[in-house]
Amino acid sequence: MTELRIAVIGAGMMGADHVIRIENRIIGAHVSAIVEPDESRAQAAIATAPNATWYPNVEAAIAAKAMDAVLIATPGQFHEPVLLPALAAGLPILCEKPLTPDAASSLKIVEAEIAGGKQLIQVGFMRRFDAQYMELRELITSKAQGELLGMHCAHRNPAVPDTYHNDMLIFDSVVHEIDAVRYLTDSPIKSIEVKHMKRNSLNPEGLNDPILALLTTESGVLATVEMNVSVQFGYQVKTEAVFEKGIAEIGRTAGMTRFFDSAISTSEHVSFKTRFAAAYDSQIQRWVNAVKKGAIDGPSAWDGYLAAAAVEAGLEALHTGSAAIVKYAAKPAFYN
Amino acid sequence: MTELRIAVIGAGMMGADHVIRIENRIIGAHVSAIVEPDESRAQAAIATAPNATWYPNVEAAIAAKAMDAVLIATPGQFHEPVLLPALAAGLPILCEKPLTPDAASSLKIVEAEIAGGKQLIQVGFMRRFDAQYMELRELITSKAQGELLGMHCAHRNPAVPDTYHNDMLIFDSVVHEIDAVRYLTDSPIKSIEVKHMKRNSLNPEGLNDPILALLTTESGVLATVEMNVSVQFGYQVKTEAVFEKGIAEIGRTAGMTRFFDSAISTSEHVSFKTRFAAAYDSQIQRWVNAVKKGAIDGPSAWDGYLAAAAVEAGLEALHTGSAAIVKYAAKPAFYN
Amino acid sequence: MTELRIAVIGAGMMGADHVIRIENRIIGAHVSAIVEPDESRAQAAIATAPNATWYPNVEAAIAAKAMDAVLIATPGQFHEPVLLPALAAGLPILCEKPLTPDAASSLKIVEAEIAGGKQLIQVGFMRRFDAQYMELRELITSKAQGELLGMHCAHRNPAVPDTYHNDMLIFDSVVHEIDAVRYLTDSPIKSIEVKHMKRNSLNPEGLNDPILALLTTESGVLATVEMNVSVQFGYQVKTEAVFEKGIAEIGRTAGMTRFFDSAISTSEHVSFKTRFAAAYDSQIQRWVNAVKKGAIDGPSAWDGYLAAAAVEAGLEALHTGSAAIVKYAAKPAFYN
Amino acid sequence: MTELRIAVIGAGMMGADHVIRIENRIIGAHVSAIVEPDESRAQAAIATAPNATWYPNVEAAIAAKAMDAVLIATPGQFHEPVLLPALAAGLPILCEKPLTPDAASSLKIVEAEIAGGKQLIQVGFMRRFDAQYMELRELITSKAQGELLGMHCAHRNPAVPDTYHNDMLIFDSVVHEIDAVRYLTDSPIKSIEVKHMKRNSLNPEGLNDPILALLTTESGVLATVEMNVSVQFGYQVKTEAVFEKGIAEIGRTAGMTRFFDSAISTSEHVSFKTRFAAAYDSQIQRWVNAVKKGAIDGPSAWDGYLAAAAVEAGLEALHTGSAAIVKYAAKPAFYN
Repeated sequence: MTELRIAVIGAGMMGADHVIRIENRIIGAHVSAIVEPDESRAQAAIATAPNATWYPNVEAAIAAKAMDAVLIATPGQFHEPVLLPALAAGLPILCEKPLTPDAASSLKIVEAEIAGGKQLIQVGFMRRFDAQYMELRELITSKAQGELLGMHCAHRNPAVPDTYHNDMLIFDSVVHEIDAVRYLTDSPIKSIEVKHMKRNSLNPEGLNDPILALLTTESGVLATVEMNVSVQFGYQVKTEAVFEKGIAEIGRTAGMTRFFDSAISTSEHVSFKTRFAAAYDSQIQRWVNAVKKGAIDGPSAWDGYLAAAAVEAGLEALHTGSAAIVKYAAKPAFYN
Repeated sequence: MTELRIAVIGAGMMGADHVIRIENRIIGAHVSAIVEPDESRAQAAIATAPNATWYPNVEAAIAAKAMDAVLIATPGQFHEPVLLPALAAGLPILCEKPLTPDAASSLKIVEAEIAGGKQLIQVGFMRRFDAQYMELRELITSKAQGELLGMHCAHRNPAVPDTYHNDMLIFDSVVHEIDAVRYLTDSPIKSIEVKHMKRNSLNPEGLNDPILALLTTESGVLATVEMNVSVQFGYQVKTEAVFEKGIAEIGRTAGMTRFFDSAISTSEHVSFKTRFAAAYDSQIQRWVNAVKKGAIDGPSAWDGYLAAAAVEAGLEALHTGSAAIVKYAAKPAFYN
Repeated sequence: MTELRIAVIGAGMMGADHVIRIENRIIGAHVSAIVEPDESRAQAAIATAPNATWYPNVEAAIAAKAMDAVLIATPGQFHEPVLLPALAAGLPILCEKPLTPDAASSLKIVEAEIAGGKQLIQVGFMRRFDAQYMELRELITSKAQGELLGMHCAHRNPAVPDTYHNDMLIFDSVVHEIDAVRYLTDSPIKSIEVKHMKRNSLNPEGLNDPILALLTTESGVLATVEMNVSVQFGYQVKTEAVFEKGIAEIGRTAGMTRFFDSAISTSEHVSFKTRFAAAYDSQIQRWVNAVKKGAIDGPSAWDGYLAAAAVEAGLEALHTGSAAIVKYAAKPAFYN
Repeated sequence: MTELRIAVIGAGMMGADHVIRIENRIIGAHVSAIVEPDESRAQAAIATAPNATWYPNVEAAIAAKAMDAVLIATPGQFHEPVLLPALAAGLPILCEKPLTPDAASSLKIVEAEIAGGKQLIQVGFMRRFDAQYMELRELITSKAQGELLGMHCAHRNPAVPDTYHNDMLIFDSVVHEIDAVRYLTDSPIKSIEVKHMKRNSLNPEGLNDPILALLTTESGVLATVEMNVSVQFGYQVKTEAVFEKGIAEIGRTAGMTRFFDSAISTSEHVSFKTRFAAAYDSQIQRWVNAVKKGAIDGPSAWDGYLAAAAVEAGLEALHTGSAAIVKYAAKPAFYN
């Protein structure tokens, strides 16, 4: 099949990041259009996507039939004016969260999509694609540790810019947990309550952070959410799920940890296919990129020879039980 | 630039895995040829690579100008008869380790490559592309913990087939550590010695495993290598590096662990860009794949609306200090 | 100084445990009296404390001048009738938590103690003596990670007997966190709120557990407390402290973990004196106990000889660079 | 039974440490004699052991019938002249490792003990009393992970004094592993070989450290021992045991870690009796010590009252579902 032509709407931090992703890590697609009012921003993005054309607004791109699909990466308040014409043009859309900033405008989008008769919109709640969230959801669904009773979530950022304000704690940050709690529990959020921890004096002026949001689901699960955007330490998103039989935690670097049956455990790989999956991918991608430039980008035939010489000594050592000295030919200047 | 056309040589376990990788995760390349004497194996691979043609041997593929580059994924003893004609044809080659099974034949390949006047061969020591190996190498090179003095490596497999024999412990398995130790220390292997642990009774008959190989480098580093192919437990490849000032360990699921300055530490993410990099990639790849089939594959506009409704309640809760009940419109049948 | 004679009040689970502790692990004290209405229980305890005498009530023990100090290990509702006569007798008292079940009766005890003119009562909030709680308190006080902003506490029990009821969640269990939060923050508890997680169906009938208690301190710290008495998994008491700069967690088996400055770290020992402190204590205590029975309880002189023979071979190996075989004399029958 | 009177031989670092241990943490024994040629050292030790008398040599202490048992804490070369007269006097002896520095002198001690007709000597291989070593030995003996095949031991010290020399790597340090490997495998050491890692430039002059000792047991187990006395980092003694089915590691702060059946796991407590055992002991020991001085050393009755007041508010919160404000009486000056 031919490549999917994507118009990226917005060339700010998120948009520029998506352009690089599509161009360098996504199979079967490329960026065909950058829609961005600020031309210099647009040109910076186009520098990383050679087949893309700049359009100042989405209507111009639609008129030019510049894309097969739309990825919206502008701030939430600018989504609606892009969503409506894109829907009208029948284009598939991946829209960064939030869909829109409030329920009424979101419902308007829903109605416009229904009117078109076909589901075209996907919302960018990317945690649903995170391996640990998927693993925790499976554990919940399996009931291997009994029913899920509650959750403790924490979302910790090193710091935020001065433009970050209190309401963004909810609509920009807690919104991730709102979707994640629903995704994990398969039950709608029923109520929300917000408490304040002691204010972090390192916050931008006026920001009252961290907060504790308490979410309840229709199914009776209580989730605490520590939203903490100035923790200085690092970027950490974790969830501790409380089951009838034990606990499971995701978001630590070791992967999901289960507290079950008197043991605290993580999983180990069982095959090189998972342990070195990323290394194999990276090896071949870098080789492909290098070959196109007439080069290699990794161990050479000379490295292969050196290993073969050492393997010979290793076999001698295995067979004799004594130490074997490796014998090497002189290194050809060719490999310098 | 046009896509790189790759001929994959050998459609066994490794070859088939590489075909899937190139077709689904590598940008700018596709599999154009499967070179494999066994036609049924070849056809199974072609089923996952629709633009590939079957050739029974590499000469036929070369004659047909079927590829721009060659990926050799056959067992080591079959590499030489592919490497020589591919070199002669001036084709770039990624050759699975080992280059060849012994030093003399490897040197012959090196000479053939030199005769051609251009480096065409890259050897598949994929650990050099693993994030933790790269991180450890940087730590060694930085001398932040002083000089590297020694290493303890362990390579543990759950089990091996009955065809696995003693010499393979060296040329198929220790060979990875031979290259990795050289890569990490930047110094050639000087000598090798092999000891036996007590034999694992769960081994295939005749296999005397686990073994302990002792590698020394020209630079004076001593590396112990536990090669253990029947450990039942899992697939674990780890290295504990002994420095003048402390220890660093790679290969645990939590990432590199440093034992330095009275603390035992791992790193935390500092940005969502690394924490959720794989999730963003997966989200967009799956969306691209779905869009091509006229579908979406993730949260819908309705999911976006539900989040917006909960965000509204969250803002109310933030502003009032009381619990807010989320109000939802009825779910349209359209989203069932 | 002569040994402190302790009367243990109550010979139930806690009391019996304290009797064994005092007799076997506490220097300079012994149990001189067991005060317990149930004679068979009392005799069971006396079997582990040979110098103790049974008294059916505290007044009888006081009249007999049977003790220098009192340890109260009965349930909370029975503390007052022991505290008042013990205070009147001028005896030092260690009283298991809670002091009494309600504020009015506790205030009465306080007034009685003041009337006596001397502090005699210590309350058994033993977490203040736990190494990790002490370490966290020091970290908070030091402000090395900035101000403390909030805490997430969890108190998880495998299961509770059928007699455990809802109010006990507060007065028997949360009471530990009430004192611990005050101890850690050095600020009184200002308010408490209680939420319910989904009920654990494995609970005894009528028990609505787990709960989430929200404590605020005068100093503005918000502490969440998951009280979870039927988690099946294990006994886990942990606190995650949220600072202006990062996080610190206690209660995991690896000791306090700090999340600070992009690293996640635990401490390592710096001396054998801490690493093997418990082993040295145990070695000598068991040796003392054995010597009193005319025996030894550990490695013999023959074990010492075997090590000396291996050390000789080790020195030979060090000096020659070759493997050395250890030579042993025949084992004397004396050591069989 | 009356207290065991112990003569501590040698009042250097180890001896002084043992004196403090016996006086403060060992039940049923006290230090009755300090045998030490250096009077000022002896007096420093006696300051921590008020019932001890100084003797310049063991013969004088024996003549004075100053002890029931002997603890030898001098360097190894001075053990024999104490062991022989103590044996002749029929005294039980706990002798710090090594028994003596070489096999011939150790055998002489063994013969002297046999001649006396009764086992009197215990050797201070204190690792046999360490909880993790005992746990690993049980795992080996149970064969729950199959047969033990090999071990990787590491013994890491921050640094050593300038007087530490190469032979001490074996007789002072590896000697611990020599006994521990035998203890864990229940099989004598058969051979030893020593390799050198790259020398640590932070070593005292002349010291060639770290080394790698290879121990084999009669039962066929191969143990690697990294002896590393200048690692700067911390004090770390660990053993990774290689089984037919997986791995177990001791010596990390989290306790024994098992790598078994695709999971990596540690144990969790199942009762407060183990989780807070040390806290309970410490609480009561400090209370006993304080009571003897007419004081308390922990939470007061006022602390108990404050908790009771908060518990009342907690119960109100539980019953009403709303936040409850804690009401406190004014703090009496008595508790300031």
